Amino acid sequence: MSKNSKSDKQNDSKRVARAASDHLAAQVVSERLTPNPLSEFSLNKDELRLALVTAQFALRATRQQTPSPTNKPTGLLVLVNGMEQAGKGTAVKQLRQWVDPRLLKVEATIGYPPLAYQPIWQAHTKAMPRHGDVMVYFGNWYADLLYNVMRMVGLDDLSDTEATNNNKGKENKDKDNSSTSATSNDTTSDKLQALPIIEWQLYLQQQLKELAAFERDLADNHTKVLKCWFHIDVDTLKERLNDDEADPQFLYQVDWSAAEIVAQFNLVASAVLREQGDWVIINGSDKSQAAMSFCHEVLQAMQGALVSSQMPATDISTSFAQQSCQAVPFAAVDIPKQLTTVKKSELDKSDYSEQLAVKQAKLAKLIRARNGRHVVFAFEGMDAAGKGGSIKRMVAPFDPREYQIYNIGAPMLYELQHPYLWRFWTRLPNEQTDRISRIAIFDRTWYGRVLVERVEALSDPTDWQRAYDEINRFEADLVNAGTLVIKYWLAIDQEEQLERFEDRRDTPHKQFKLTDDDWRNRDKWKDYVQAAADMLARTDTAAAPWCVVATNDKRQARLQVLDHAIEQLEARLQL
Amino acid sequence: MSKNSKSDKQNDSKRVARAASDHLAAQVVSERLTPNPLSEFSLNKDELRLALVTAQFALRATRQQTPSPTNKPTGLLVLVNGMEQAGKGTAVKQLRQWVDPRLLKVEATIGYPPLAYQPIWQAHTKAMPRHGDVMVYFGNWYADLLYNVMRMVGLDDLSDTEATNNNKGKENKDKDNSSTSATSNDTTSDKLQALPIIEWQLYLQQQLKELAAFERDLADNHTKVLKCWFHIDVDTLKERLNDDEADPQFLYQVDWSAAEIVAQFNLVASAVLREQGDWVIINGSDKSQAAMSFCHEVLQAMQGALVSSQMPATDISTSFAQQSCQAVPFAAVDIPKQLTTVKKSELDKSDYSEQLAVKQAKLAKLIRARNGRHVVFAFEGMDAAGKGGSIKRMVAPFDPREYQIYNIGAPMLYELQHPYLWRFWTRLPNEQTDRISRIAIFDRTWYGRVLVERVEALSDPTDWQRAYDEINRFEADLVNAGTLVIKYWLAIDQEEQLERFEDRRDTPHKQFKLTDDDWRNRDKWKDYVQAAADMLARTDTAAAPWCVVATNDKRQARLQVLDHAIEQLEARLQL
Repeated sequence: MSKNSKSDKQNDSKRVARAASDHLAAQVVSERLTPNPLSEFSLNKDELRLALVTAQFALRATRQQTPSPTNKPTGLLVLVNGMEQAGKGTAVKQLRQWVDPRLLKVEATIGYPPLAYQPIWQAHTKAMPRHGDVMVYFGNWYADLLYNVMRMVGLDDLSDTEATNNNKGKENKDKDNSSTSATSNDTTSDKLQALPIIEWQLYLQQQLKELAAFERDLADNHTKVLKCWFHIDVDTLKERLNDDEADPQFLYQVDWSAAEIVAQFNLVASAVLREQGDWVIINGSDKSQAAMSFCHEVLQAMQGALVSSQMPATDISTSFAQQSCQAVPFAAVDIPKQLTTVKKSELDKSDYSEQLAVKQAKLAKLIRARNGRHVVFAFEGMDAAGKGGSIKRMVAPFDPREYQIYNIGAPMLYELQHPYLWRFWTRLPNEQTDRISRIAIFDRTWYGRVLVERVEALSDPTDWQRAYDEINRFEADLVNAGTLVIKYWLAIDQEEQLERFEDRRDTPHKQFKLTDDDWRNRDKWKDYVQAAADMLARTDTAAAPWCVVATNDKRQARLQVLDHAIEQLEARLQL
Repeated sequence: MSKNSKSDKQNDSKRVARAASDHLAAQVVSERLTPNPLSEFSLNKDELRLALVTAQFALRATRQQTPSPTNKPTGLLVLVNGMEQAGKGTAVKQLRQWVDPRLLKVEATIGYPPLAYQPIWQAHTKAMPRHGDVMVYFGNWYADLLYNVMRMVGLDDLSDTEATNNNKGKENKDKDNSSTSATSNDTTSDKLQALPIIEWQLYLQQQLKELAAFERDLADNHTKVLKCWFHIDVDTLKERLNDDEADPQFLYQVDWSAAEIVAQFNLVASAVLREQGDWVIINGSDKSQAAMSFCHEVLQAMQGALVSSQMPATDISTSFAQQSCQAVPFAAVDIPKQLTTVKKSELDKSDYSEQLAVKQAKLAKLIRARNGRHVVFAFEGMDAAGKGGSIKRMVAPFDPREYQIYNIGAPMLYELQHPYLWRFWTRLPNEQTDRISRIAIFDRTWYGRVLVERVEALSDPTDWQRAYDEINRFEADLVNAGTLVIKYWLAIDQEEQLERFEDRRDTPHKQFKLTDDDWRNRDKWKDYVQAAADMLARTDTAAAPWCVVATNDKRQARLQVLDHAIEQLEARLQL
């Protein structure tokens, strides 16, 4: 009887797999696969090769030492995803043979559990192509997302709350794909018919939105994205799994020989493809045909990237900011009083020392109690407003191994050859590479885009105006992943700044703090205050509110900085 | 009776711990701790703070956009090691409070199993300070080494061969430190008395030599190294382990509350300190005293780095190359005929296609059979000698996820702010960050130092002359760790090069391959041939021999490249 029931279940799961696969084919693939507009214009092999190499070198040539307004160096990131054994490897091999392989970067990942307190995309930012480069990225952030969702689907028989609550501790619960899995799958499939919005779908939708926004920000910042999804049907998959040498590391780390797993995958895949319209679906049933289609797609994407690299910024129509800019032209806000009239309320030195010690101890305790949460501190303010001094008092009670301070100045050339936020993405606390340090303190930040770059005209108005939204999304992604983002604007008035500049000029051991730039910036005081006001108005979000600190009295300011950190930690850690 | 024997063993292990600790104190620590020359010249706190900040900013100022011959930008790397609870954290906290914390980078690691096919230092190269920076690195490569050796000591009761055979598979064998460990330790300690050169000591010595050479290469390349070893006695350790909040992640991932582990550690530590005379030993019994000593040491090291940044290169006396240079002035070798007289033996096209397919298939099979071993291919040669074409034919049969091609040009500014080899260290196959790709192909390589940099006078003669040894050590470290290093020099004669240049100039889709630099380099043909001859003579090592390929006949050349790869793989994999 047990044998019968097992075979029943196998039949069940086969039916489910078949149904899900049909579902996918009908709903998504066929719609988009036929008619393939490329088939009409397809090139023969020699033409294609020449066109690929030509486009590749033209794209590389957009990378110049000094970018001009009519040439935006542009990179291309090709995301390669889809099913196991669907001809992805063959396609990229073909591409690599037809282009100059030295100028084509290939990266690959098979999907890992998302890292705690990090948006899914973060682990992948180090590998981004420089402007002018073409990079093919197998797996990428979608592999992590699919890895995670596949496990959620498998865990559906657990309580609903556990399945949606973050992914902590789930990492090693790879189940053996026998009876439990088959049962859970039956349930899943029933649920899908009866109740289309189930827990993992909500999670998936939210993540897909975040990733789509991230990809649009990449595109707006001159890293074009081409997304290719390779698909084959269940029979072809089965055949190829038997044919080829077994690959020890399967995509998404699931067992593709289990019919119920494949069915689950197709359910998840159809949800992804339904949600995101920008996937190019490539039929992998004929591998060499698939490779040809893929190379055509890459060629087209390179040519598209070339065109957009030569367009003035205002013509780029895919941008978020563009849409809002056209609707609402940029309007500067009124300058709030707290930025111009900064009071000086003298605090007695011994009172200060006492309060400082108490608050430092309290902050240190909260930091210890935060249970590994990542924390990002952002310090902005006018020159000589006391960022350095405030940071010094804040970190005094921290374990020196636990934090990094990043002193942000003008970007280096290789940083300029990436999207604007890239140099911050790659400095965030990172579970993969920072084994102990999980607190990042930025002395000047990504807000440089809307402060110094705006005032000094270092970036186009379109670019810095778009940046408010990009920054808000960036911070929201971090906060959604569980990171605390704590931001300070240190305000000072013009007279106090002059006094401090003169003090620095006249005190030998403070002279290194004062540069010619400081005096030049001071001449543009009004512009900087306007930029600060606009920044505060547009980026004071619920996820990451600003704390404006009056710093004419340095001691008072340092205590306020600590107070805000304490308050934020208490509120966000719910202590 | 079992209770008695356990307590006997505990007494035994206590005796061992005590003996080992005494041994350490007597042999190494006391010798070097007293007299501490710094005690005479120690500064008061305020003087020390000012001196630290001044030195810090002066060092930063050595980092300039265009290095001049009288100012070598110089960084300082402070290695912090020693015992658990020995006051390391307090000391670095103190330093961070006294310097400008924004300009002091701190990294930390607690020791992990060395990664397969990588020298121990490799995993730590990404974190290196830029020239002009000061970086404190807790744990560092010594933590990995100690992690590994501590496990070897614990495994001493296993067969000797297993203990010395590489560290593969040992990673997760953390034993519980109960009776087995105590027993093994008794044996170890007996062996140590009777037979001082035991297996782990040989391993340790070999690794320490490799690391010492690596550190000297860092210093020669303007990253000065200060090594601080914090020591406390067993009683203090015990006390502090009870006092403090328990740290979940102990150094080297061992249980410091177990007396026998501490005894083992002291045995290993004394071996390290005996082997390497450049450790500054800091007595951690008084934490604030230790912090003062540490800050003094860092000050002295910064000042030393400043002095050496202003010295002409020829005055640096610690260099390996310097020693050999003084003994033997650089003498150019005679140019071997194979570099000037390159024969053209026509190969029939259909013969070629056939042979190519056979050899590619053979190479692909060997690559699959290499069992995860890392492979580094290095391609050098005159312009138009066919590096690109050879690489293309070589990678054609590879899985596109498996390899990276690095096209090496002039270094970027941030690369120039690191030791010369840094940009290659950080591009090696890396288990930590490259999840699949373990083959690195370099189109132009680290040999640029002794080719283009020599011929175009881009580096000082001292620097490029020292580079032969540095490169040999670099490659030997890789090969010792199990990586295969396969090097090609593609030779072409002057007439053939001219023909190819003209062909490139006149063929539209080849024009991008030809630059003004190529014509300029051609004018210095003789210098390049001399540089190549010297390079081949000095870096054709047993670990990584050169393969010189005559490329006047491109087809023949491509087959030869494959032949050599096949031969090397067969020999090194012992297939």
